[in-house]
Amino acid sequence: MLKCLKCGKTHRGFKIMCECGGILEYIDEKSGNFNSLLKRQFLDIRRYLNFLPAKEEFLPKLTPPVTPIVEREIKGVKVFFKLDYLMPSGSFKDRGTYITIAKLKEEGIREVTLDSSGNAALSLALFAKSEGIKAHLFIPEHTSEGKKRLLKLLGAEVHEIEGSRMEVHERAKNYQGGVYISHWYNPYFIEGTKTVAYEVYEQVGSLDYALAPTGSGTMFLGIYKGFKDLEKLEKVGIPKMVAVQGKGYESLCKRSAEKSQLAEGIAIPNPPRREQMTEVLKNTKGTCVSVGDEEIKNALEELLSMGFLVEPTSAVTYAGFKALLEKEYFERGSRVLIPLTGSGLKNI
Amino acid sequence: MLKCLKCGKTHRGFKIMCECGGILEYIDEKSGNFNSLLKRQFLDIRRYLNFLPAKEEFLPKLTPPVTPIVEREIKGVKVFFKLDYLMPSGSFKDRGTYITIAKLKEEGIREVTLDSSGNAALSLALFAKSEGIKAHLFIPEHTSEGKKRLLKLLGAEVHEIEGSRMEVHERAKNYQGGVYISHWYNPYFIEGTKTVAYEVYEQVGSLDYALAPTGSGTMFLGIYKGFKDLEKLEKVGIPKMVAVQGKGYESLCKRSAEKSQLAEGIAIPNPPRREQMTEVLKNTKGTCVSVGDEEIKNALEELLSMGFLVEPTSAVTYAGFKALLEKEYFERGSRVLIPLTGSGLKNI
Repeated sequence: MLKCLKCGKTHRGFKIMCECGGILEYIDEKSGNFNSLLKRQFLDIRRYLNFLPAKEEFLPKLTPPVTPIVEREIKGVKVFFKLDYLMPSGSFKDRGTYITIAKLKEEGIREVTLDSSGNAALSLALFAKSEGIKAHLFIPEHTSEGKKRLLKLLGAEVHEIEGSRMEVHERAKNYQGGVYISHWYNPYFIEGTKTVAYEVYEQVGSLDYALAPTGSGTMFLGIYKGFKDLEKLEKVGIPKMVAVQGKGYESLCKRSAEKSQLAEGIAIPNPPRREQMTEVLKNTKGTCVSVGDEEIKNALEELLSMGFLVEPTSAVTYAGFKALLEKEYFERGSRVLIPLTGSGLKNI
Repeated sequence: MLKCLKCGKTHRGFKIMCECGGILEYIDEKSGNFNSLLKRQFLDIRRYLNFLPAKEEFLPKLTPPVTPIVEREIKGVKVFFKLDYLMPSGSFKDRGTYITIAKLKEEGIREVTLDSSGNAALSLALFAKSEGIKAHLFIPEHTSEGKKRLLKLLGAEVHEIEGSRMEVHERAKNYQGGVYISHWYNPYFIEGTKTVAYEVYEQVGSLDYALAPTGSGTMFLGIYKGFKDLEKLEKVGIPKMVAVQGKGYESLCKRSAEKSQLAEGIAIPNPPRREQMTEVLKNTKGTCVSVGDEEIKNALEELLSMGFLVEPTSAVTYAGFKALLEKEYFERGSRVLIPLTGSGLKNI
């Protein structure tokens, strides 16, 4: 069941917004014990099927893995890097796309529209192609040629839009060609990304802090939602949530004059779920930090030297971690999650 | 314990060849029950630590995942695609590198030499970098600039060699700079790749056929060795092994006049483990099939349309499957493994 965060009205089926303009959240009244609800015969995302709004018969054939965690001790803090770029399309977006596609199939929707600067578009194009769903993709004109070629190769109808990321979004929203499934709004997307929390809990237990690169907030809100479930089912404590943003595009921290170029994947100054994210920061006593290109570049180099082949937007999170570490934000011995969200292989 | 397949002499430590020139195999006298030896607290390669010649304290920090399987029914045959390209360096080689590095660390070896046309070099460079091991990499001069740049960025000492793949191999073998760890010979590499079989067995049970892209044979022999273990521990039947090779570079099928360009990752006309592979084909009543560029190109397109972003060498295996399907090689209802070995993201 979907519930409007503004007027409280409930909805069924696939919907990305309430008639009142409010943001929707998927509500599940699951109860029981986390461990006993696990589908242990699966070593992939289907382990968590009992917690997901997807019926087995509608699941996409393409299946996201459980991504590995690499543990490192950094200046007295226990860091858990989650390699969420090891996904079929090279980014964590596949989690959200997986559940979204399952719901679209259940509802019989075969033609969709999405706007994205890159990873979400590639993820949708890949899953849509493999399920025979028609995808209209609105992307900024300056998207790399290689990415555009790949999207077309995957059979997507690509609409290149001149202008800012917000203009791309407006054009997609008003397009008449397919059901608009914006991952900024789509509540099913977060139902997919919340599996990160389930995996982390199975892999390393509870956390004190969870960082997330935060533009539209699909990873940030997903991690939080997953831990909310775990709190209810297992009495696991919810980590303090830390939003890391790119300078010049902050929506939760104070807006900087400097504009980051490298954080392109999260350069979203007005995310629709901003209020929801502010609420999470408050509820978990978390914080927001923003970083610039110099810090991102350094973080990317360090990640590479630890063996993580990630793209610059992924390095934002580690840069934020380092900035907070510098300020002695984390208590000694804290357990901190740093999800690494996008593959760097495509930038070779 | 390592055993020479020629003279029978046994060895300990890290060694890639017997003094007599014979190929080495790692021998383990593991007994017991597969399921009870699993380390179920891990959802990654460490699940199988009890079957691997690696001590926990020497394992690399960078951890390969359990890769997902996608099941498809193709003309009456049950095909299991294993997404083994969803690895830290983008190829299945990470399995072999992982165990090799563990053994090198155990033996205190901090400087190594390898020759590779691509994926094995990238895999070693990544793991070596993250463990502070110095890597000398011998690669063909015509390797793509992007790949060369990445290897250097990872701190490897790159030696570009003019000439054929066999010449690159000769130059590396005779180099005096570090311990030579050729994955063509290195028995620990196969100890890593054999985990594919363990995963497949946990994920979907037993198979009738297992295909593998076959150049030096690290995947082919790994799958076989893993199933040999499973036969001993669980009485699981060993699948018929099918080697798929590129035309013009066959070592197990009849050599073609046509030379495949797209199967570059397996263009190894004289692999050191050829005899061992011939033996496996005989023992399992398997077969060898070779494919040309036209077939590989078509197979690659079909794989992409199923949502698999793989590189051309990965498509060789599916091309081989289609060629055998055409000849009605597989019985109706057969269960067939097709590992997809290398990511296509790096070719965008």
